[in-house]
Amino acid sequence: MITIPIEVSARHIHLSQPDLDLLFGFDYKLKPLKNISQTGQYAAEEKVALVNGNQKIDNIRVVGPTRPETQVELSLTEARRLGLEIPLAVSGNVAQATKLTVIGPQGQIDRHCAIIAQRHIHASLEDAKKYQLHDGQIVTVECGNQRAVVFRQVVVRVRADFVWNLHLDTDEANAAGLQGGETGLVII
Amino acid sequence: MITIPIEVSARHIHLSQPDLDLLFGFDYKLKPLKNISQTGQYAAEEKVALVNGNQKIDNIRVVGPTRPETQVELSLTEARRLGLEIPLAVSGNVAQATKLTVIGPQGQIDRHCAIIAQRHIHASLEDAKKYQLHDGQIVTVECGNQRAVVFRQVVVRVRADFVWNLHLDTDEANAAGLQGGETGLVII
Repeated sequence: MITIPIEVSARHIHLSQPDLDLLFGFDYKLKPLKNISQTGQYAAEEKVALVNGNQKIDNIRVVGPTRPETQVELSLTEARRLGLEIPLAVSGNVAQATKLTVIGPQGQIDRHCAIIAQRHIHASLEDAKKYQLHDGQIVTVECGNQRAVVFRQVVVRVRADFVWNLHLDTDEANAAGLQGGETGLVII
Repeated sequence: MITIPIEVSARHIHLSQPDLDLLFGFDYKLKPLKNISQTGQYAAEEKVALVNGNQKIDNIRVVGPTRPETQVELSLTEARRLGLEIPLAVSGNVAQATKLTVIGPQGQIDRHCAIIAQRHIHASLEDAKKYQLHDGQIVTVECGNQRAVVFRQVVVRVRADFVWNLHLDTDEANAAGLQGGETGLVII
């Protein structure tokens, strides 16, 4: 039986250094607020707003450190709220991402950067070996109690510094009555 | 193989006649806008707002006809937006429902009326007989493609005038990438 801790990813943004500079000022350094489960990553103090036409969502947390490409991760509920069609994609794959406007205190940018992150498992090389999983593998995870849900189409992501965790977005967590901190059961 | 049409229930309110009168005026009659799948039920032209403290959600559709008890059905996402803890309950069971303020054009009411509807199947007596299901039975339904989800804890509701349908709320539909109109597979 393979158990996995469940984490819920609320909407957030990863910024490239050039985009961070455009939004917050030249050579800006993010201020880490709180470490998150994946090694070296943190919720930053900084927040931005997302805009599409007349629709706006404030208080989008920046997750650091900076990355090669700016990426916004939203739920389908939030995509609807912004009036946008946003594709389901594996985090890091912004090839098909939807264009929107990101507003910071010092500037704004238009970027094809919005995705709905495909639910995924973070696994280290050791985890992958131990559970006989490989990067890109699709597995199923059983979660929840009163609103129990079996999530199919969970993609396994393997990297040396990853920490064993299932990441769900807020729609997925709410549908299953999860808050994060629970444990799921991986079915291969 | 038991297939079932999937419907998505967005937030809505059922009103008692006394509460309808308080919100819209004495001896008020709802104006049917569009029939919905369950026999005799309709989305009405009327809308109300829901308030908890400083938080407000506008444009809550009234579903007619009036019922013995006022009941608001929200998703967990919307409950969070209102800052409320709202219990999961079978529709019609408002014993544990959460108090909020409902505002109409002619008045407002405070009622213990808000629930998150437990995902459910509507079955007629003939459906129940055909598929060997009984009222209150808990079944599992497999749904979706790219975001395939297996929903456990689906309650079967049997009534003579019910129409064979799976009802999911917007969190559940979004988590599974469903818009309504798709078909699920019931697993008993």
